[in-house]
Amino acid sequence: MKQQFLDLEIKTNGQKLYEFTNETINWIKDNNFMNGTINLSIQHTSASLIVQENADPDVQTDLINYFNKLVPMDNSLYIHTTEGKDDMPAHIKSSLTNNQITLSVKNGKLILGTWQGLYLFEHRLANQSRKIIFHFLGD
Amino acid sequence: MKQQFLDLEIKTNGQKLYEFTNETINWIKDNNFMNGTINLSIQHTSASLIVQENADPDVQTDLINYFNKLVPMDNSLYIHTTEGKDDMPAHIKSSLTNNQITLSVKNGKLILGTWQGLYLFEHRLANQSRKIIFHFLGD
Amino acid sequence: MKQQFLDLEIKTNGQKLYEFTNETINWIKDNNFMNGTINLSIQHTSASLIVQENADPDVQTDLINYFNKLVPMDNSLYIHTTEGKDDMPAHIKSSLTNNQITLSVKNGKLILGTWQGLYLFEHRLANQSRKIIFHFLGD
Repeated sequence: MKQQFLDLEIKTNGQKLYEFTNETINWIKDNNFMNGTINLSIQHTSASLIVQENADPDVQTDLINYFNKLVPMDNSLYIHTTEGKDDMPAHIKSSLTNNQITLSVKNGKLILGTWQGLYLFEHRLANQSRKIIFHFLGD
Repeated sequence: MKQQFLDLEIKTNGQKLYEFTNETINWIKDNNFMNGTINLSIQHTSASLIVQENADPDVQTDLINYFNKLVPMDNSLYIHTTEGKDDMPAHIKSSLTNNQITLSVKNGKLILGTWQGLYLFEHRLANQSRKIIFHFLGD
Repeated sequence: MKQQFLDLEIKTNGQKLYEFTNETINWIKDNNFMNGTINLSIQHTSASLIVQENADPDVQTDLINYFNKLVPMDNSLYIHTTEGKDDMPAHIKSSLTNNQITLSVKNGKLILGTWQGLYLFEHRLANQSRKIIFHFLGD
């Protein structure tokens, strides 16, 4: 049974979904991971990790628009406003989605559905540098 | 330390919660799993995995109604409409809930609260065949 | 490879975030856990587990207020009302957040971002006694 870690940095420029499925698959291949779990932890509370459809890019646009309507960037609604109109909504969106996701690896392959991709969901407007810690546990 | 996988197929017919707690418990018993984690991955982004109350069925009805109000099936709100009025809402509901859940097994028993059940939450209207991949890691 | 479990009881008095980051860190230290996963399972469906900002307490107030607006305590909206106006909303909030979270431990340290804390998010109004089961798997 082995364990291995990786820090992945993703530079973001605004509210978008940033796919890192290939980085995950390559990490598995490069290290010959056969079976095990990969626990992903984003080190921030204003961006999330989600699994979403990787086929039609309109899905991502609709998702971003929906979350912006659900959690308005309106300072009159929040007490915590010192970090900008997008900060408190970003914390809320983070709680509505996920900071941690555990994926499985079987026979050297990442278990994801045909139309599933792995994404960092950025909720802030300004440029950010985001860190995701990967943790493999298996053989 | 052993690892084992199972593909569970659940046929769904509309927006409901489909319990699979017993299937999970039976898998543990049949394989004599003692301690470890079970990582569940649904291979779709228009249905989710959730842990919810298994006592009063009205809870499930209220949950479905709530999510339908929160994420309206109204094509004028979305760009991605080619797969039907329920598809984009299904993707959003999937992001608001979970595609992956990790449960623990202790002394051969699935760790769930007295009133907790394990459910597939179907967000599409038409019949679907859904696949959940189970992954046990432990001893 | 070792596995260990802990039952943590948290007494709550109303809708707040109850931090248990230190309890988690101390458990790791006391048992000399080096590398592995900690799977957390809350044994209830009317309270959640979330990772949130631990810096400005206003973030927590805004979060609670937001969820109360998103999921109104209004019995006319729900069928399941026998357990009080806050019960069905609590179940919904639980589904919108998480009942399970898996964290990683690396070189004896819990992997959390600088501004991240680990919280029980209580959704009920009356006093409750909540149980979270910790499960370490690693070495």
